[in-house]
Amino acid sequence: MPAGRRPGDPHTRATILTAARLEFVDQGYNDATIRGIARRAEVDPALVYHYFGTKSALFVESAELPVDPRQVADESRQSGTGQALVERFLAQWEEDPDRPGQRFVAMVQAVAGSEEAARSMSEFLTERVWANPHPGVDDEGWARQRALVASQLVGTAWMRYVMKMEPLASASRAEVAALIGPGVDRALRREG
Amino acid sequence: MPAGRRPGDPHTRATILTAARLEFVDQGYNDATIRGIARRAEVDPALVYHYFGTKSALFVESAELPVDPRQVADESRQSGTGQALVERFLAQWEEDPDRPGQRFVAMVQAVAGSEEAARSMSEFLTERVWANPHPGVDDEGWARQRALVASQLVGTAWMRYVMKMEPLASASRAEVAALIGPGVDRALRREG
Repeated sequence: MPAGRRPGDPHTRATILTAARLEFVDQGYNDATIRGIARRAEVDPALVYHYFGTKSALFVESAELPVDPRQVADESRQSGTGQALVERFLAQWEEDPDRPGQRFVAMVQAVAGSEEAARSMSEFLTERVWANPHPGVDDEGWARQRALVASQLVGTAWMRYVMKMEPLASASRAEVAALIGPGVDRALRREG
Repeated sequence: MPAGRRPGDPHTRATILTAARLEFVDQGYNDATIRGIARRAEVDPALVYHYFGTKSALFVESAELPVDPRQVADESRQSGTGQALVERFLAQWEEDPDRPGQRFVAMVQAVAGSEEAARSMSEFLTERVWANPHPGVDDEGWARQRALVASQLVGTAWMRYVMKMEPLASASRAEVAALIGPGVDRALRREG
């Protein structure tokens, strides 16, 4: 038996996230369990609950969405940053050079396969990642802008990693960013 | 035992497609079989092969992509049609008012869950639905334009049907088309 990790261990959280990522890929969202993730991470299931609360929260966290809310809010006030946003978004999914986009595929499998996972991811995006920086002031405009940007990013990743449609599949990140960036810019500028 | 349908029956093809759609939803692409689809359609498996050849061809056909190649080619030469294209694209997935987008969800599950299904769908889109109407003349530009339009359509459907992110989830088709259409227009006009 491994000694098991404790809450104080600074690596425990990261270990659980890695285990969760593998478990969601192997089992799919619906069949993955906190127990199975704990076993893989060699920790007590109680520790997983302690850190993450629920399976859906753990799922969202383990997907590591490559977006910082404040950065997006700031960038939405500038121009010419759609390209940078696209490139950053793609880089995050291509960390593993041997299997670029593999985590994106795992994420869409989970989200398409489970309404609970889809709801968690959507809530996470709208409430935490892309919450309106000035709530009340044109919430509707903000929501529209956010949905436009999100759909362009997801559509691009879908074509590049899942459908592997050319030229998006083989192009460099910079080339994809140059192609998609202007549209993202327009979406970001739509609201002041 | 049901009498079974024969090749001459004008409804046989449609019956097989309906059965395939249900089978792909219930079993997922990888576990669905020609045999299972034939059983559901109450036909001989040989008849399914006769009409569709392979499971992946049947899958693509049963997804009924709502795009006519010549129409898209024509529309790409006009302006102001991105909106119509978006509206037509959405209408196709919302045929069943009780479960709008349910077939889109089934399609993305299959494509995200199987590299074979993804490859079939991608080949179908590039070679049959959106083949270059003037092969050789700027094939690259055509491919770029096609990838941009496809990623915007898929991204929009993903946000509306899978993630259910507002305002794309609750807006009318016309509202979504008005929001997304201009970007599709720009993608369509990028090449002359």
